[in-house]
Amino acid sequence: PAVLAMARRDSRRVYVGKRAGLPTMRQAAINDLLLEEARAGRRVVRLKGGDPFIFGRGGEEIESLAAEGIGYEVVPGITAALGCAAYAGIPLTHRDVSQSVRFVTGHRQGDVVNLDWPELAKSGQTLVIYMGLLGIEEIARRLIEHGRAPETPLAIVSRGTMPDQQVVVTPLAELP
Amino acid sequence: PAVLAMARRDSRRVYVGKRAGLPTMRQAAINDLLLEEARAGRRVVRLKGGDPFIFGRGGEEIESLAAEGIGYEVVPGITAALGCAAYAGIPLTHRDVSQSVRFVTGHRQGDVVNLDWPELAKSGQTLVIYMGLLGIEEIARRLIEHGRAPETPLAIVSRGTMPDQQVVVTPLAELP
Repeated sequence: PAVLAMARRDSRRVYVGKRAGLPTMRQAAINDLLLEEARAGRRVVRLKGGDPFIFGRGGEEIESLAAEGIGYEVVPGITAALGCAAYAGIPLTHRDVSQSVRFVTGHRQGDVVNLDWPELAKSGQTLVIYMGLLGIEEIARRLIEHGRAPETPLAIVSRGTMPDQQVVVTPLAELP
Repeated sequence: PAVLAMARRDSRRVYVGKRAGLPTMRQAAINDLLLEEARAGRRVVRLKGGDPFIFGRGGEEIESLAAEGIGYEVVPGITAALGCAAYAGIPLTHRDVSQSVRFVTGHRQGDVVNLDWPELAKSGQTLVIYMGLLGIEEIARRLIEHGRAPETPLAIVSRGTMPDQQVVVTPLAELP
């Protein structure tokens, strides 16, 4: 709301986000809307939470603009991994513990989470799993099966950076 | 400068950053300075470029504060990967091409870059190499040796997000 409040009062606002239980505008329809409005000579702001280039479909949106020769500017943002880390006080890299960090999505496809488990299970890296809550038990089990130490600390963050943020920290093996 | 301009005019400013060719304050000395000033009852801002929790030593700084029971607040920032991606127009993830993204550092230790090449060479992931310029030829060579397609596009970004930003895009194999 604080960001929307900076928009011109006479601007038209179209909600295209995802809300649980409500029908969602498809990505192709969003791309088309951006094109239509731009072709009509309007200035269009596509406002997103997080960063547009990390699991944000921003790449697909600028592709369709570029294909039509429409100019654009991309403004980076605080992706969930960085926001949650800062507000939970958990560094994503640390000289002694983790020399790299990796972002993946934990969507379930059907009933399974489809990830490259042997790679993700390697130590020395921090793993950030976006949208991992529904598949969290499978994720924890598979990481251990593939060699992550059962005592590896796992933090679950919901409503990250919001006043009602919740953080639960547990060893991987004790998740259930 | 624009951020520093928001500080109180009577604040004391201590430069602790890295500048090529100049002596650098060691991390332990920075931690001690934060502690000393906080113990003296002063409000301390530790200002960094990028994000404090991505290769930023922020974890070490809050560890030493926490050990002394000194309160702190962490503000997330735009890490170089996100800033460079946005300003170069290169998405870090894309449904069709890259389902994960990974940040590593490309420091040379002695004469070699020490990374887990077989893992980094796998396709389907975007690789962001911080501080990789000095070792860039070795990085490109090793990625190909370990199986990355020679035509994989590589972008080299220097002075990212600045007015004098430079971006060079080349297939991995044609880097030299």
